[in-house]
This record gives sequence, C-alpha cells and structure tokens, in this order.
Amino acid sequence: MIQVTVWNEFRHEKTNKTVQEVYPDGIHGQLAKFIGEEFTVKTATLDEEEHGLTEEVLAETDVLIWWGHMAHDEVQDEIVNRVHQRVLEGMGLIVLHSGHFSKIFKKLMGTSCDLKWREDGKNCRIWNVNPSHPIVEGVGECIELEQEEMYGEHFDIPAPDELVMVSWFPGGEVFRSGCTYRRGNGKVFYFQPGHETYPSYYNEQVQRVIKNGIRWCAPTENVYPSYGHAQPREEI
Amino acid sequence: MIQVTVWNEFRHEKTNKTVQEVYPDGIHGQLAKFIGEEFTVKTATLDEEEHGLTEEVLAETDVLIWWGHMAHDEVQDEIVNRVHQRVLEGMGLIVLHSGHFSKIFKKLMGTSCDLKWREDGKNCRIWNVNPSHPIVEGVGECIELEQEEMYGEHFDIPAPDELVMVSWFPGGEVFRSGCTYRRGNGKVFYFQPGHETYPSYYNEQVQRVIKNGIRWCAPTENVYPSYGHAQPREEI
Amino acid sequence: MIQVTVWNEFRHEKTNKTVQEVYPDGIHGQLAKFIGEEFTVKTATLDEEEHGLTEEVLAETDVLIWWGHMAHDEVQDEIVNRVHQRVLEGMGLIVLHSGHFSKIFKKLMGTSCDLKWREDGKNCRIWNVNPSHPIVEGVGECIELEQEEMYGEHFDIPAPDELVMVSWFPGGEVFRSGCTYRRGNGKVFYFQPGHETYPSYYNEQVQRVIKNGIRWCAPTENVYPSYGHAQPREEI
Amino acid sequence: MIQVTVWNEFRHEKTNKTVQEVYPDGIHGQLAKFIGEEFTVKTATLDEEEHGLTEEVLAETDVLIWWGHMAHDEVQDEIVNRVHQRVLEGMGLIVLHSGHFSKIFKKLMGTSCDLKWREDGKNCRIWNVNPSHPIVEGVGECIELEQEEMYGEHFDIPAPDELVMVSWFPGGEVFRSGCTYRRGNGKVFYFQPGHETYPSYYNEQVQRVIKNGIRWCAPTENVYPSYGHAQPREEI
Repeated sequence: MIQVTVWNEFRHEKTNKTVQEVYPDGIHGQLAKFIGEEFTVKTATLDEEEHGLTEEVLAETDVLIWWGHMAHDEVQDEIVNRVHQRVLEGMGLIVLHSGHFSKIFKKLMGTSCDLKWREDGKNCRIWNVNPSHPIVEGVGECIELEQEEMYGEHFDIPAPDELVMVSWFPGGEVFRSGCTYRRGNGKVFYFQPGHETYPSYYNEQVQRVIKNGIRWCAPTENVYPSYGHAQPREEI
Repeated sequence: MIQVTVWNEFRHEKTNKTVQEVYPDGIHGQLAKFIGEEFTVKTATLDEEEHGLTEEVLAETDVLIWWGHMAHDEVQDEIVNRVHQRVLEGMGLIVLHSGHFSKIFKKLMGTSCDLKWREDGKNCRIWNVNPSHPIVEGVGECIELEQEEMYGEHFDIPAPDELVMVSWFPGGEVFRSGCTYRRGNGKVFYFQPGHETYPSYYNEQVQRVIKNGIRWCAPTENVYPSYGHAQPREEI
Repeated sequence: MIQVTVWNEFRHEKTNKTVQEVYPDGIHGQLAKFIGEEFTVKTATLDEEEHGLTEEVLAETDVLIWWGHMAHDEVQDEIVNRVHQRVLEGMGLIVLHSGHFSKIFKKLMGTSCDLKWREDGKNCRIWNVNPSHPIVEGVGECIELEQEEMYGEHFDIPAPDELVMVSWFPGGEVFRSGCTYRRGNGKVFYFQPGHETYPSYYNEQVQRVIKNGIRWCAPTENVYPSYGHAQPREEI
Repeated sequence: MIQVTVWNEFRHEKTNKTVQEVYPDGIHGQLAKFIGEEFTVKTATLDEEEHGLTEEVLAETDVLIWWGHMAHDEVQDEIVNRVHQRVLEGMGLIVLHSGHFSKIFKKLMGTSCDLKWREDGKNCRIWNVNPSHPIVEGVGECIELEQEEMYGEHFDIPAPDELVMVSWFPGGEVFRSGCTYRRGNGKVFYFQPGHETYPSYYNEQVQRVIKNGIRWCAPTENVYPSYGHAQPREEI
C-alpha cells in the first residue's frame, strides 16, 4: 500500500480564526482524512523536530504532499536538500496551492515560480485539458469551486511535461493549474486549489485529483540508474 | 525574403453582408495587407483552379496561412496531400481560427481537432504563457479583443510541442489558443482569433503574432533527411 | 481485467520458413502467449473478415497491439478509420516495430513515419532514458538484443509526448525506440523491437515493456468530452 | 548585434600540456574566435574578480557560454545566483560539455545532471533528430567527431523542451546531446561536445551549432511579466 506523508506548514491554523473554522484539524488533518481512505497516511508539520521529515520518515514515504505559505523561509535548507534527494531517488511529490513558492518546488523547477494572485472570494473553474490522463480520471470536464484565490499567468515554471488542467477566474485570468514533471527517478505534480480560508479540500473532485495524483506519483520498481565512470558495453 | 501565401476559403465574404463590411477585400485581403508590410505575399482561394495551390505556387511558398470554415469538405484531398507533403519537406503552416477543422490541420494532428464554440459577440483575452517565445515577441502579457467567438476546452489536439498562449472567455471557458508543432521538416502554428464577423485581423497585436509566427515557421536551410535502406557508418 | 487484442498481419509466417521457425504460432501467437499471463487476450489478423477488427471486437478492446509490415496497403481505410475513432474515444494502441509504417500509425502521427533501416543480423541495445516511467518499470538500464533490425534516425515522427527509450546500433545509428503519445482520449505507445526473423518477443525485458505498456495505455474512466455549441457557464 | 560572453574555468589550460597544445589560447579563446566571426564577443574566467561576471558584464550580455569542469565548486554561489537571475530575465545560456555539472546548470534544471562518462579517445556521432530546428540549420544528418569523451545515459536532466540531437558512442552508449529549455524569460541550450583534450571546437559543424544556438538563445523584446497582487481585468 502506498505510504503518503502530508506535510503542512500549520501556522495559519494557529492564529487565524477563519482558517480554524474551515480546517479545525489543520489543513494536514483534512488532507490526511480523505487520503487515508485509500492509502496509508502520516502527517508532519513545520514546528516538529526536523519539520517532521527525518531520514526515517522520508525513507518510508512513497509520496509526499506539500502545503506551505507564510513560512517558506523557515524551512531549513538541509531538510529541503533531503527531500530533493528523495525525489531524485523516486519519491513522489505533490505540491499544493501556495506551495508553488516553497523552497523545494523552486529547487526542483529552477525558476522563480512566481505568479499573479488575488484573494477576492470569487469562484474558479478548473478545466481538464488532458482527458486521458490518470490524474483526471473520474473528474469529468471541469471542477467548479465557489471560492478560491485567483492565481494567474504568467506562472513562472518550466513548461510542464504534461499540462493536465487550466483554471479560469472571473477577473479575467487563466492559470496552468495541473502540471506534471519528472525529476530524476521521481515524479512531481503541482495542483492549484487550496487557499487556507476556502474549503477546497472538502470538494470531492479536488480529493479525487489528489488521490489520482498519489497513484500517478508513486515510485515504480525501477532501480536508480548508475552514474559516473562506465566500462564500455562493446569491444572498442 | 520570406514568401507567404495566404489561403482563404473566401465564401462568407460572398454572401454575408456583415462579413463584407468587416473584410471588404476578403479575409485574405486583410491578412495579405499587413503581412505584405514585412514579407512577400500572394493569395489563393478555394474557388480558384486547384484552389490556387498548384505545385508551382507551393514550391515557391515558405509559409502558408490557412483560413477556412464553411467549406472544409470542398477542399480536394489531392490538394490536401500536396500541402501536407510540402509541410513535411519544410514549408511553414499557420492555421487560423476555424481552420482548426480543416482537412490539412486534422491530417497533421491525427485527432478530431474538435472544440466547444459559441458566437456571442463577447470579448476574449489571450494570455501569453511562454514569454521567451519569439511568436509573442513584443506582444506583452495579453491581447484584449472586444469581440471574438468563444472557443473552449477540451480542444482535441495533440499536446502542443510548445504552448504559447491560453485564452479566457467571459462565459467561463479557457482555450489553448497559441500552439506550435513540428511535423517532418516543417513547422505548424495554430492561432485562435479570427471569426469572420469580428475585426480581429485589424488588431495590431494579433498582426504581430501572425508576423512573428511567419518568421518562426519559415523553413531553415536544413537538407531533408534521407530515409530507407542505409549503409552502416561503422565497420560491422 | 484489461482486454487486449493482438493484431498481426500474419503474412510472413505463411511464406517464410525462417519466420515460421522463430514464430511457429505466428507473431500474434507469441505476443498473445505472454500477454495472456496477465491480461485477457484475443488475436485478429489481416486475412480475417474485416481484418478481425469488427465494431464488436473493437468495442470490447481496451488495448490494441499492432504488428504489420509487408501488407500495410491492404488494410482497408474503413477499418483504419474505425480503429482511429476508437483510439480517440480511449482505446490504447501499441504499435510494434514495422508497424511504424502502418496506415493507423501514420494517421495518428500526421507525418511520414519514415526512418533508416538495415537487416544485418547485428545486436541492438535499448537504453532507458526515462527511469521513472511506468513503461520501463523493472526493466533496468537497458535491454540487450543479440539480433535486431537496425532502425535509425531521422525517425519522422512528431516529438513524443514522452521519450522513454533510445536504441543504439553497432553500425553507428541511434533511434528513439520507445515513444508515447496521447491522441483524443486514447494513448499510443510505439516500441521498436520485433523484426520477424529475430526472436525479440521471447526476450523477457521486451515482454515486460509490452505488458507495462498495456497497463499504461489502458483507458481511464474518463467520460469523452463534449464538443460543439456550448452554453456559457457564467452569466454573460 | 548579439553580445556574447564566453565564460571558461580556464584551469586545465594552465597545468595540462595536452590541453595547452589543443587550446593554446584557452578554450574560451578558441570559442571567442569563431563566435566573433558573427557576434560581438567578450571572455570571462574563473580566476578573475567576481569570475569576470560582474553585474555590468551580465547586464550587457545577451548570451552567456559556459565551460567548466574541475572547479565547479569554486564558483561562488552569489555569482551563480546572479547568472540565474539574468537567465530568468531573458539572457540566453549555452552550457557546453562538462558544464553539465556546473552549479548554474544544476540550479536551472533541478536535478543532479549526472551521467555516465569515459575518456577513451574514441569517436562520437551526433545525430540530428529535429531537422526543422534552427539550432541544427545547415548541419545535415549528423556530426562526426574523431575523438570525444563518452557521455552516456541515463543523463539526469528534466525531459528537454526540445530534443535536438542524440549522440552515438562506439562503446555502446547513447546520449541526449542537444537539449533546449526555457526558464523564466530565458532560454538554455545544452550541447555535449568539448572535452578539453580533443579539438571539438575546431570542428565547423560544432561551431555552426554553437552559432545557431546563440541566435536561438538571444533574448526577445518581450517585457518581463508582472507578478504579485493583481487587479482584476473584468468587473467582478
């Protein structure tokens, strides 16, 4: 069974009443709840020792979910490097919403990962532009969210290996909102919804995408390639 | 100097007064007008002999522009095959708006090229999602069109080699509206705007994209590769 | 359980003694044998009524395997169009070896699908260049085949959505030998090995790739998108 | 006129007699010589103040060429970050040969950029797999080098936005040797040849690829996108 670790910054929930009301068990709590219906799940948060991401925890993690926002800078570089190494070795990584600005996502992308944003409490429609992709299996043509933060182009990411979803916002913006990447032996999936004051992680289609993403991201049995000095395979 | 041939179905203009008012010289006339500012340009239309696309014309064409809508089926397969062969040999092809359903575009894509549409006279905003791409050079963050036909996802095309633009529509839709492809030695660029009753081809940013597209699509000096039975390059 | 139909031209086996010795049950027989270890499998061949690919057979097929070589032109266009339509609706398609020149592959690719070739009885090494991809799960760094027909670049295909394998040949050639594509709701996988006079389909790694490919190609539960005139999702 | 800065580590040339004989003016000297035939060119090296890459120098550089090998670790992080920022703003970057392991390339790629290697003095054949690409304009089907270091797969890079060349080595290896990437507003081109003891940069086809790469990498006139809090474009 796929082992998932949900990492959450878990700061908004400690100080902001609205966030507490939307996510009384923390964003990680709600994520873990529905992920746990199909996978083995643990949680880890910023203020734990080593941010809860010890060598042991990561070694046992098939797919790591990442939610962060106000405290990206407090994540220690050593832990970022550790997560990065595990992704290259094959661990899956799902980066949610404001995690676009996390150190780990920027390190994996090589770009600023910047974007346009606006908290206006308006709706969002996430279109499926890749209907045969397993990440949108069972999701249909689009996901309608009554409230979501606007994220708009230009989104400063490398062109996704696969563009799976594109979002529409009433203020006139579009956003590449479901993006897959391969890095080393690992797979990375970025998915836009999940502002801390809106109940996006209670939406069943959003949950379905995250669950599909976990299956898509999970490591294969491949052996990590060998690198360095190599003997010839043919007589030369 | 790059030699451009603008191909237009030229049927709406003969029967529809609104279209005549918007494009008194035909859609091809207006396209040729601004393209001619920077390139050598000819026009060709459906009702000419061989649709104006004789072997001679195509042999001298570096980039072909294609606008069609109501009479896709009247384009003879022989001419479609001739254009296809020229694209594989290196001729650039720019497919505009309703040309998405042309025989030549479907043949090059291998898919249905279907989409959602609605003529509602509303606006359209074309976002630049690939700011370093030469096709959007000088265009800025987005193009605002006061009126354009809605084209919406799912657009049944292969994932573009490069996704350059994504459009927003007020009815809630998004559309991959600037897409590049390489086929054989040739390059193909699909660009969404240009409904026959709206003046999109008078918009300077739209004109700039088409001109940039011509430069991007133009053939290189490469020699067409050799195929078939091959002698070894090494002693075996 | 995934339903696989193995389609084989089945002509070489009727006339060529060497081929008969390598594949006494036909190439389709050998393919069906190992595919049947994990999936439900049927076979179909060129000389059957409707080439064995009736509406009923295709409706029940999740993944179609295609092997053809000397009689590509005898495949009726009506059947090609039927297979094409099923791919767009979601059926997976695995095109093997000389199937690169089949009508169905060319129709899905939009290019000539031409390449360099040489039957020299020499070896071939298929390198895994995409180690996290499920198609190469369990395959390791490369597949060594003692004998295979040389297929060399330039291979006139669209840039693959995902390049999974690249082959090396002793005569000095390279070849993009494992390529994935999405077309409509369907997935397509091209895989190079399988010349009729060499025993490539007895190789366990080759078998593993084909089995992995079947899983990768299998349809998802997605509903085919709706196209055509669309009502707005927002009040306009 | 495009302004090119050639950056070279310039260490091998100071201590290794073979390298001195091959490149008496340094690798940067030879690169600058042929680049200067078509572009404005400067050089910069590791042991200069700020590695020769001051804010002023980078501000005036359209395309930076990078050659490094034994002293990647001596490049200061501050300078790496400065180059990275300039790439995101639009400066082109061409990374040559052993530059695959430079800090700047790894930062832009997000992966280990590791590979297999062997200095065996054998030949190398670089195949053009993307014949319509401007980077291989005028290069033909392949480049033959009598001596080059073997670089083999798996090359731990993100899937290139465009794969342009694939190399063949007599020991049985293949290598994705010409790779393009877009990062922010900038373009990046990786090109494999150039081991310090072999005369690859005297080869005219290699020179042609580098010159083509400079033109492809050069910044466009696009304005860097605006990011951060955004006012709506539509009334909401």
